[in-house]
Amino acid sequence: MSPRIEIEPLGDLPEVAEGDSVGALIAAAANRAGVALADDDAIVVSQKIVSKAEGRVRRLAAVAPGAEAAAMAAELDRDPRLLELVLNESRRIVRATPGVLIAETNSGWVCANAGIDASNMDEGLVALLPADPDASARRIRAELDAAAGVRPAVVVADSFGRPWRVGQCDVAIGCAGLVAVDDWRGRADTRGRELTATVIAVADQLAAAADLARDKTSGAPAALVRGAASWRTDDDGPGAAATLQRAAELDLFR
Amino acid sequence: MSPRIEIEPLGDLPEVAEGDSVGALIAAAANRAGVALADDDAIVVSQKIVSKAEGRVRRLAAVAPGAEAAAMAAELDRDPRLLELVLNESRRIVRATPGVLIAETNSGWVCANAGIDASNMDEGLVALLPADPDASARRIRAELDAAAGVRPAVVVADSFGRPWRVGQCDVAIGCAGLVAVDDWRGRADTRGRELTATVIAVADQLAAAADLARDKTSGAPAALVRGAASWRTDDDGPGAAATLQRAAELDLFR
Repeated sequence: MSPRIEIEPLGDLPEVAEGDSVGALIAAAANRAGVALADDDAIVVSQKIVSKAEGRVRRLAAVAPGAEAAAMAAELDRDPRLLELVLNESRRIVRATPGVLIAETNSGWVCANAGIDASNMDEGLVALLPADPDASARRIRAELDAAAGVRPAVVVADSFGRPWRVGQCDVAIGCAGLVAVDDWRGRADTRGRELTATVIAVADQLAAAADLARDKTSGAPAALVRGAASWRTDDDGPGAAATLQRAAELDLFR
Repeated sequence: MSPRIEIEPLGDLPEVAEGDSVGALIAAAANRAGVALADDDAIVVSQKIVSKAEGRVRRLAAVAPGAEAAAMAAELDRDPRLLELVLNESRRIVRATPGVLIAETNSGWVCANAGIDASNMDEGLVALLPADPDASARRIRAELDAAAGVRPAVVVADSFGRPWRVGQCDVAIGCAGLVAVDDWRGRADTRGRELTATVIAVADQLAAAADLARDKTSGAPAALVRGAASWRTDDDGPGAAATLQRAAELDLFR
């Protein structure tokens, strides 16, 4: 079989600490695994290790909830310290019920709890999303270049829930060196007629594919995808926020 | 590199006609490509060829719009014959604007235009979604067994848009022999603490991954995914509708 797409988890990374070079850690892990990184690869990195490396970690005990968080906490039966963080990290609350709190983050992503997450963290700590995940992706790409002399596409991914469908899928929250959205409008279908509504969120599909190769208990924080070269760009490109975020006025579900 | 996941498009299928055995066509295409199918594989099939095989194709010129479709067409500036089909195929309209019409299909999926699609069809024809995509997946699985003596997992996939994010991703609308939703609640994270909100839509991630290996102009209608055996079930299982559809009362966006 000559597979078109191959995905390898890069699981052998040490615990990531603030200040670490994620790109260097990934390059070292690939090297130990005998995997040669190439420009044509795409590296999908879990946002959790990016957040850790960037110091985007908060100790709940150190958070002083303001009045808005306290009121929301009473209404939703949630921890006011966590809600204080959600409010700080969000432009708007999209939906708030006791079971689910969906926010639009400062970086423009709509997700539960503004992406703030306690899993796979030491007790009492939570991870915020990277403040600018596209900048994170560009930095990791530069770190990979410095460490291994390669410039693969980089995707920063996180697991998001979605309306109408059970469960979460990994999606892209940042990218560099990748056409995040492949726009087929104007091109022809198999019968030569112009496609009018086919815009493919390639970066999200890469994130989802990479998650299949990972294991939530082992916590493999990155994966290498081979075969996605057709979407690679040499320059870092506009990133995910500029291409994957639906403008609020076009979005029917705000 | 020993990839955890490998994806191979199965593109060499003939044009599918009503009554064709999709499983037999896929088995033959794999055979011609020198690809040996195995129980542990997952076959992701584009809904379009399933619909064609099931006769779920309509000629617009033969559709007589009713009053509701005519009124909606005037309001939304859309083809009333297409809207008549959307209404017939839907339980409810979720959102209707001149640019976007989102419906909950009779089979319970929420998507634009009830999944009705003119692309890659002969002039004047549109394809409806399969009436029961899980039944389609079970049938294809049985056809693969009959043709090739194997029982891989089968996913019927389609490209859906989503709120808040630009573009479409492939998702599962039917499956057989697959744990469509991998529920990690009750299991432990890397620090031994119980995961409380991690439910992974594996079938959707498989669909998205498979789409990366396909090419919208060549129209490869199926893909083989190797490495997803941990989610395979020997019995056909409950399917996608029973596991992936969020109950309306739990869904904040109806």
